[in-house]
Amino acid sequence: MTDTQSTAAADHRGSRTTDVVVIGAGLAGLTAARELVAAGKSVAVLEARDRVGGRLLNHDLGDGQVTEVGGQFVGPTQDHILALAKEVGVTTYQAAVPGETVYVNDGRAKRFTGHTPPDLFALPDMGIALARIGQAAAKVDPAAPWQTPDARELDGMTYETWLRKAEITGDAVDMINLFLNSAYGGEARDASALFSLWYVSTFGNETNPGTMERGTGTTGGAQDSRFVGGSQLVAQRLAEELDGRVHLSAPVRRISQDSTGVTVVSDAGDWRADRVIVAVPPLVASRIVWDPLLPAQQDQLFQRLPFGTLMKCVAVYDKPFWREDGLSGMGLLRGGSPIREMFDNTPPDGGPGVLMGFLGGKEWRKWAHRPAAERRGAVLRCFAQVVGDRAFDTIDYVEQDWTAEQWTQGGPTSVAAPGVLTDFGQWMGRPHGHVHWAGAEFSPYWNGYMDGAVRSGRTAAAELLDRD
Amino acid sequence: MTDTQSTAAADHRGSRTTDVVVIGAGLAGLTAARELVAAGKSVAVLEARDRVGGRLLNHDLGDGQVTEVGGQFVGPTQDHILALAKEVGVTTYQAAVPGETVYVNDGRAKRFTGHTPPDLFALPDMGIALARIGQAAAKVDPAAPWQTPDARELDGMTYETWLRKAEITGDAVDMINLFLNSAYGGEARDASALFSLWYVSTFGNETNPGTMERGTGTTGGAQDSRFVGGSQLVAQRLAEELDGRVHLSAPVRRISQDSTGVTVVSDAGDWRADRVIVAVPPLVASRIVWDPLLPAQQDQLFQRLPFGTLMKCVAVYDKPFWREDGLSGMGLLRGGSPIREMFDNTPPDGGPGVLMGFLGGKEWRKWAHRPAAERRGAVLRCFAQVVGDRAFDTIDYVEQDWTAEQWTQGGPTSVAAPGVLTDFGQWMGRPHGHVHWAGAEFSPYWNGYMDGAVRSGRTAAAELLDRD
Repeated sequence: MTDTQSTAAADHRGSRTTDVVVIGAGLAGLTAARELVAAGKSVAVLEARDRVGGRLLNHDLGDGQVTEVGGQFVGPTQDHILALAKEVGVTTYQAAVPGETVYVNDGRAKRFTGHTPPDLFALPDMGIALARIGQAAAKVDPAAPWQTPDARELDGMTYETWLRKAEITGDAVDMINLFLNSAYGGEARDASALFSLWYVSTFGNETNPGTMERGTGTTGGAQDSRFVGGSQLVAQRLAEELDGRVHLSAPVRRISQDSTGVTVVSDAGDWRADRVIVAVPPLVASRIVWDPLLPAQQDQLFQRLPFGTLMKCVAVYDKPFWREDGLSGMGLLRGGSPIREMFDNTPPDGGPGVLMGFLGGKEWRKWAHRPAAERRGAVLRCFAQVVGDRAFDTIDYVEQDWTAEQWTQGGPTSVAAPGVLTDFGQWMGRPHGHVHWAGAEFSPYWNGYMDGAVRSGRTAAAELLDRD
Repeated sequence: MTDTQSTAAADHRGSRTTDVVVIGAGLAGLTAARELVAAGKSVAVLEARDRVGGRLLNHDLGDGQVTEVGGQFVGPTQDHILALAKEVGVTTYQAAVPGETVYVNDGRAKRFTGHTPPDLFALPDMGIALARIGQAAAKVDPAAPWQTPDARELDGMTYETWLRKAEITGDAVDMINLFLNSAYGGEARDASALFSLWYVSTFGNETNPGTMERGTGTTGGAQDSRFVGGSQLVAQRLAEELDGRVHLSAPVRRISQDSTGVTVVSDAGDWRADRVIVAVPPLVASRIVWDPLLPAQQDQLFQRLPFGTLMKCVAVYDKPFWREDGLSGMGLLRGGSPIREMFDNTPPDGGPGVLMGFLGGKEWRKWAHRPAAERRGAVLRCFAQVVGDRAFDTIDYVEQDWTAEQWTQGGPTSVAAPGVLTDFGQWMGRPHGHVHWAGAEFSPYWNGYMDGAVRSGRTAAAELLDRD
């Protein structure tokens, strides 16, 4: 119930009225709602699911313990999510577990410490690759990638083509794909070179330019920390604060605008508002019925922002046994492994033991439609390569396939193919009448991450208040 | 009203029942319905628009004359659409008008006859380009492009990258983009190399392998002939034959399946059927509410089949004055012209005079959002470069922007970026429970063309009958 709920005006009989409807109770929508309420607006947040958090989802391990099957990591320069979490009383802890990481290539496992996999062939290549990517990404303005020198050229080829042209060899391309596998839910061939260099430029903030190292890094990087109680707790706390303004199980089917405002039709009834913030992924937004239609340019842009393909595979054990072996539970796997990156996802107080692996990109495309038991076996074999055969002694095994989620349709974020940023990018956050946009995809920093979602919510709220 | 309309079964109260619901009254849906009726099935065709024809649309010139603002050309090897038109009594005529074509490069116009523009720089390049494209396309199986040797490599790069790697120079790439501008509503950078070579391989039939020359050609090629009475007439005749089975203004909002059949919810009421053929573009199909959801792999594929961007610009004159000057009305324009390809679209009996130009690909992206008067001026200046200043003396000027059409959302067809065909292509026509697929995008020959639409409708009907 919103604080201004009242009999609707005669021309919108049956609608509840509010100043602003926010569609989507992920971090972006909840942040926007919070800002608007603070500014004195009445707000109704309509969420399609029966829960808040969007791409953040805690998985209950019992005994008050959780692990995450959605977005989970935060790190330095992600100031907005870190400050917000602090404000709602959610604390962080260092994600990295002491111990050695395991690098698996062609079935052979090697233990190592630090950031650099022990691969004599890939290592020099990776150094060169990171330097070249860094140089190129430094030329991109995160807020206007289409203004990059050679934008036209860079947006005419895939990232894979760019990497090969930059004389980055197969080994290094494969290592970069290993990262993209979870960062894009895709491969270097899925994305434009310009998009990918832009994406690197977003791994920072106004004073710290984005770097690949920050994006891929654990301690000191984007995988530095996690939230005590799970990342979804931040969204849950925000929803509590919004005190009855969040309406669950309210998928929005139609958004109709006229000169005086917006009517939002949902399965939980209709709302009439002066303005709307749509805070769902562009793809999901494009599947709402729009009246009037989205501007053709914006619709075309949203047609060109497909989601990556990503599943999180979680194995639960009585304890994190690998730690006794001096292992961090982290693994990097090459050579056609279904799981290419894995982490120790054990709750902060140490039990039960949890291993989490990303099944993403081309591996998702190979594995997602196979029988669950077959896939589980393949995943646990990957885990066993990293932590040994006790990986098979699970007490629970959970998969969260984000592509099968009706209200996300993929994961972790939207990736643009060649030609999209230069021809359509400027239509990204452009308001459509009384409708404003938020969501992780709409941020110039940490695009696709929690920090980007929070930033975009704040930007949308400020833009809306500014137009009032 | 369908011939089996009856009180719905108790569990689908209020639904009308029929053996098959066909969604979409374009050529694919109408063809499928025709085949099913011939096989004794009761059929209801649900069409969102208040007209049939989908991407075919006649524009009334008055006095019983029409010109087309949607798909219009047919040619040799397009056996299915040609035979079907004959069966419903629609005849064809040669599209090409006697006279010289005009080639405009950097503002300079040159007249020529035949297929080959008079450009000493571009000409040898084009010869090499066509030979290399032909060689590469010949290795592609139109029904299974992902099995092409080097499919992985070809699907890792844009067509632009492939053209440059094949040492096809800027002039030739620009000429190919001129063709893609109307064929894709896009540019060589928008598409995967594998998709583009596959697309060339579809310009044929079971006995005549596809060639680029057939796709780009006028007489003897894909732009050989037109329909007397306009292409939409074929769809209108099919709908007449279906005698009350076509329901207009019936946009489908939801498709629900259970073990015994399918419930289709439309603005014109609900239908219950044993099976459904969805004969709308993949993008449009993906915006229907699906219960159960589409398989994630198929949804991901549809997320990756955006439409091109295409507008048809039509100027009407009291007569085809250019013919007196020995001009065919055909023009090829390079060097940043908004219109890059134009044709004489005068009705077959010679009046009024009609010029039609494609505003597509990157030119659409530059021009579509500008003021209509400014765009009209730019288009007529292009026409004037080809037929002289009398191009400004219009009696009518019409634009048909297919991206602004709610039930198409782009034109002329769907184009796949790198990575899509190899990772998702096999999910293209796979039935989803009781739901089968048709539409120009689902054909291995003349994909995106009228012939492909008719083929796909026949294939879907046969598949459905085969499963019964």
